[in-house]
Amino acid sequence: MSMTTPEETVLEKTKQRLAEQVIQFFQHQMPFNTHLGMQVSVENDDQVTIRLPWQNTLTGNSIHQILHGGVTASMLDTVGGLTAILHAIRNLEADGITDFESKFRNMGTIDMRVDYLRPGKGEVFIATAQVIRKGNKVAVCRMELHNESGTHIAFGTGTYMVG
Amino acid sequence: MSMTTPEETVLEKTKQRLAEQVIQFFQHQMPFNTHLGMQVSVENDDQVTIRLPWQNTLTGNSIHQILHGGVTASMLDTVGGLTAILHAIRNLEADGITDFESKFRNMGTIDMRVDYLRPGKGEVFIATAQVIRKGNKVAVCRMELHNESGTHIAFGTGTYMVG
Amino acid sequence: MSMTTPEETVLEKTKQRLAEQVIQFFQHQMPFNTHLGMQVSVENDDQVTIRLPWQNTLTGNSIHQILHGGVTASMLDTVGGLTAILHAIRNLEADGITDFESKFRNMGTIDMRVDYLRPGKGEVFIATAQVIRKGNKVAVCRMELHNESGTHIAFGTGTYMVG
Amino acid sequence: MSMTTPEETVLEKTKQRLAEQVIQFFQHQMPFNTHLGMQVSVENDDQVTIRLPWQNTLTGNSIHQILHGGVTASMLDTVGGLTAILHAIRNLEADGITDFESKFRNMGTIDMRVDYLRPGKGEVFIATAQVIRKGNKVAVCRMELHNESGTHIAFGTGTYMVG
Repeated sequence: MSMTTPEETVLEKTKQRLAEQVIQFFQHQMPFNTHLGMQVSVENDDQVTIRLPWQNTLTGNSIHQILHGGVTASMLDTVGGLTAILHAIRNLEADGITDFESKFRNMGTIDMRVDYLRPGKGEVFIATAQVIRKGNKVAVCRMELHNESGTHIAFGTGTYMVG
Repeated sequence: MSMTTPEETVLEKTKQRLAEQVIQFFQHQMPFNTHLGMQVSVENDDQVTIRLPWQNTLTGNSIHQILHGGVTASMLDTVGGLTAILHAIRNLEADGITDFESKFRNMGTIDMRVDYLRPGKGEVFIATAQVIRKGNKVAVCRMELHNESGTHIAFGTGTYMVG
Repeated sequence: MSMTTPEETVLEKTKQRLAEQVIQFFQHQMPFNTHLGMQVSVENDDQVTIRLPWQNTLTGNSIHQILHGGVTASMLDTVGGLTAILHAIRNLEADGITDFESKFRNMGTIDMRVDYLRPGKGEVFIATAQVIRKGNKVAVCRMELHNESGTHIAFGTGTYMVG
Repeated sequence: MSMTTPEETVLEKTKQRLAEQVIQFFQHQMPFNTHLGMQVSVENDDQVTIRLPWQNTLTGNSIHQILHGGVTASMLDTVGGLTAILHAIRNLEADGITDFESKFRNMGTIDMRVDYLRPGKGEVFIATAQVIRKGNKVAVCRMELHNESGTHIAFGTGTYMVG
């Protein structure tokens, strides 16, 4: 016995398909993400993780061989943006599906704060995010950057247009 | 008749040399700046300008062919950081010269806010900065990003450790 | 010969009336503004100014007799919010007038950054704002706080829900 | 058998006394804190909590009877500032004790971001903070505001001069 109507099942499948398209977009159709080497992965519960293996081209301060602050900002902005959009898709109603594509074109970061906590040393950098303010038009995310040993390198807070 | 003592002349020349070394460092020894294609120039009054010609690898949203928000953040962080350090050098006293090098190793961004105002469309992107809070230990800068037509793309505010 | 249709004239008058109601609201129906002693004034071009005369109850650091950072933040948030809402009213189309009241109930600050530049010393504090990102749903303002002598005490940047 | 030298014991006692003086200062010598009704308490492990019972004078939007955003900012700035200073005291070396008083006069907020998550409804508002970047000169704190039911109303991030 199912508690889900056929309409709900169709809506859920459509939303799942939209989410997959957006994840593919972030992985393959954002050239700067590819250029830096970002690897996007998303768990079933929409938990986004972006990994970036160290390369010398990412160096900011060459005395200390640490990550450029702009790379940190790029990873935090990207993981926050994808998390915000997946949150918006999850909350779509049936009548919001049809104009999602036109809305998607105008989604983007309104503002972002980055707090640099420790030098960006490591072999792999790992960015994660969670939504702290949920809304139909605007979502706010908290982001974190760690290295492969769990050292906490940076915090971010981003405000995103999502509708 | 000169109003400047020989000691002052030596101090000024030393500071000028330090400033030139730091500018060279930002241009040639920060691999990520080179990797993106940033061009650093500094006027006599320490007004820093960073230019970045458009390349497809810098694309964020490939639908609109606009700059990735992380590139904007990278340019703003870099122009603010160099401006803050040059400000710190200008204000060095004679007894601060000797330990400048050890301090320089630990200079860096504490936090930064980026406000994305308009889509990053253009052929050349131009970042500038000014110091809004002056201090021996911490400086705060306001940064701006425009394109070659003068379209204002983003504001930034950065807090930098400089001493 | 008029270039303005009767409908446009009605729309402009309605918008002017809405703006006046909102200004009155900020002056008289926000108890904390009154409690602190904020004086709201708006020029014809929607340039908002908020003045606050010094009182001992506003003191943060009693050693220096300077304004509490929270008073600075309160003034900047208020001047930015009113500026953002007046901007939204100015851009209303005819079909947006009817649901303005319900929207107004949900307008508010999404996030704000305050940069404290100099100690808050003075007899009267003066807050002003300008819109830097214009939108139907979200507006971003830059705010400034000066004292009566023109000393620049703080900058602010606020992101506001306006639609 | 004691692992602590007499000098260490004296240092610890001096630091404890300094901490108590600073807590008293925040509670009794910052007139705006008293004016709003903030109640400061500090646990043994330097965990600061600031409570503020609802009063009508704290109202921002009188339609919804919610806290003015400036009150939220005031509480977050205050709890972050006290947490940052207590952190600085805890890390003082013996030679830093003597000039602490002169340093204390110049401690203050450099910048702060507030993220407004939910309407400020409640009977008692509770602000807490933790240090996320530790340093001799600058400390960065994350702050949170909840109501008496645990509803999370706002996040803050503050950068403080502490040395």
